[in-house]
Amino acid sequence: MSTVKAYAASEAGASLKPFSYELGALKDEEVDIKIHYCGICHSDLSMLNNEWGMTQYPFVPGHEIVGEVTAVGDKVKKVKVGDRVGLGWNSASCMHCEQCMEGQHHLCYNLESTIVGRHGGFADRVRGHWSWTVLLPKDIDMAKAGPLLCGGITVFNPIILAGVKPTDKVGVIGIGGLGHMALKFLNKWGCEVVAFSSNKDKEKEILKMGATRVVNSRDPKALENIKGTLDFILNTTNVTLDWNSYLETLAPRGRFHNVGAVLEPMAIPAFTLLMGEKSVAGSPLGSPALTATMLEFCVRHSIYPQVEEFPMSKVNEAMEHLEKGKARYRIVLKAQ
Amino acid sequence: MSTVKAYAASEAGASLKPFSYELGALKDEEVDIKIHYCGICHSDLSMLNNEWGMTQYPFVPGHEIVGEVTAVGDKVKKVKVGDRVGLGWNSASCMHCEQCMEGQHHLCYNLESTIVGRHGGFADRVRGHWSWTVLLPKDIDMAKAGPLLCGGITVFNPIILAGVKPTDKVGVIGIGGLGHMALKFLNKWGCEVVAFSSNKDKEKEILKMGATRVVNSRDPKALENIKGTLDFILNTTNVTLDWNSYLETLAPRGRFHNVGAVLEPMAIPAFTLLMGEKSVAGSPLGSPALTATMLEFCVRHSIYPQVEEFPMSKVNEAMEHLEKGKARYRIVLKAQ
Repeated sequence: MSTVKAYAASEAGASLKPFSYELGALKDEEVDIKIHYCGICHSDLSMLNNEWGMTQYPFVPGHEIVGEVTAVGDKVKKVKVGDRVGLGWNSASCMHCEQCMEGQHHLCYNLESTIVGRHGGFADRVRGHWSWTVLLPKDIDMAKAGPLLCGGITVFNPIILAGVKPTDKVGVIGIGGLGHMALKFLNKWGCEVVAFSSNKDKEKEILKMGATRVVNSRDPKALENIKGTLDFILNTTNVTLDWNSYLETLAPRGRFHNVGAVLEPMAIPAFTLLMGEKSVAGSPLGSPALTATMLEFCVRHSIYPQVEEFPMSKVNEAMEHLEKGKARYRIVLKAQ
Repeated sequence: MSTVKAYAASEAGASLKPFSYELGALKDEEVDIKIHYCGICHSDLSMLNNEWGMTQYPFVPGHEIVGEVTAVGDKVKKVKVGDRVGLGWNSASCMHCEQCMEGQHHLCYNLESTIVGRHGGFADRVRGHWSWTVLLPKDIDMAKAGPLLCGGITVFNPIILAGVKPTDKVGVIGIGGLGHMALKFLNKWGCEVVAFSSNKDKEKEILKMGATRVVNSRDPKALENIKGTLDFILNTTNVTLDWNSYLETLAPRGRFHNVGAVLEPMAIPAFTLLMGEKSVAGSPLGSPALTATMLEFCVRHSIYPQVEEFPMSKVNEAMEHLEKGKARYRIVLKAQ
């Protein structure tokens, strides 16, 4: 009963192989979830390859999970057996620090991740704390909802944090798994949406996703042409960009927001910030409460990632598809 | 009648010598001000030495001016002859662009500065546009008010921009002309105020100005001790700091704000911003409306810079005093 059937890598870069493990006794505040679908996020690949030096093997990836509650601990609140729920990158937090008490559980210093030191969602079951087990709205499309739990909330949170208004002109850098969801959100937000992309093949799709226009991010002249116009830019890439060129496209008081974990420090000219009252910020995912709010918004506006579905048994093919940059735009594994 | 008696430098780094010039005919929207006092800002020194490559000689410094209106153009609004007014770094803007129409005249792309391409306040008179001629509250102390028009508004504006609350814990880096005014504002704001300083001699005075405590900015351990505690940091210096050490002292959602024009790009680790939802921003001075609001606040709370007064005839001694880092904490010239 408590044996989980999963797919695990035995070492960095290894392929995923069937792997079973015992969940052990359910603790008071824990919830067991039978997995229906699990999205694949780029960080699953980074973790599999131990790029951040914190992967424990055998390693079961997967943190964009939707499914159904099968068991709850004695002190679980909010969720009950049979509820349809989601679980993302985070699966527990302390619940009593200042951040948790203010509802910003995702900023808790003792945050636990679904795939760091525990086994994730490339499996038939997963376990998490009730607070991070997000109830899904009744009418949600389960087959497409998984990626909202990580990629979706990661780009939704900055829109809220920066107080983006329907009258704003905004830009999104990098139209991949995260960026394409950002376009959809910002379109429904009522904004004029500029997509920064250098991939001509994607252009038609990008416009269909809700971008007002596409600006070639590799053309300095194209950036120059929109100088001083954007109120908000969301950067979903994790590479070093020509930061000042993008800051120059911001209007006075414009905000540049990073969700990509660029490794090299960003070289930000103080003078550009100063003269235009501009800012550079960043954020990780979002709180469970905001995730629930986002899911409601998604159902109301039919906002879903554009997904490619693979059966979980073909998980290695799916990972290879992602690694080769072929995902259009998010891969979801269907549990058997 | 229109001959102005001033002090000018004939070339970069030259001493200031008596210099007369003709103001010419007063234009429709211009205001002439008889100068009572003029503060000395570090940017007067930078401009005198042509550090920013935009100084025109003969050069008359001075942009922290208080005095009395002696003449107004035909279409001047708001101010009339006899009014006591202030004039800061900016002296005109276009009045019709989006920024001006939104009340953010200090972000106008066609902003004119009091000492760039025109003669400033080390003189008996100065001229500016009515919109930038700020009416002084009745009970203001004229002898100390000058530095509020540039240094004061430069540190007051970020407090408003960042939405600093009385319950916030804040820090100020660099306790000089700008920083010491920031301490006074933030103390009256109700905040817990940390002063970052490495000058032991200033410590007693700094506490008297309103700091709750002084943290040695050159001691990595002292910074480490207050890790994760500050909601807002105002940096008034213009040198490259160990940015990440300061960002680490911010609490989750903390904001780092620069008013110093650091020349070298700031190396900001994206990961630090991301994990704590932190931001780095900047701003120049402030709008005329906010300057008026600040002056009211200053009078209500008796907030003035700590000044050293020199007669304008001793302007070279005063400039030398500043250049040697001896100013405690702002120098004001008294017009004869």
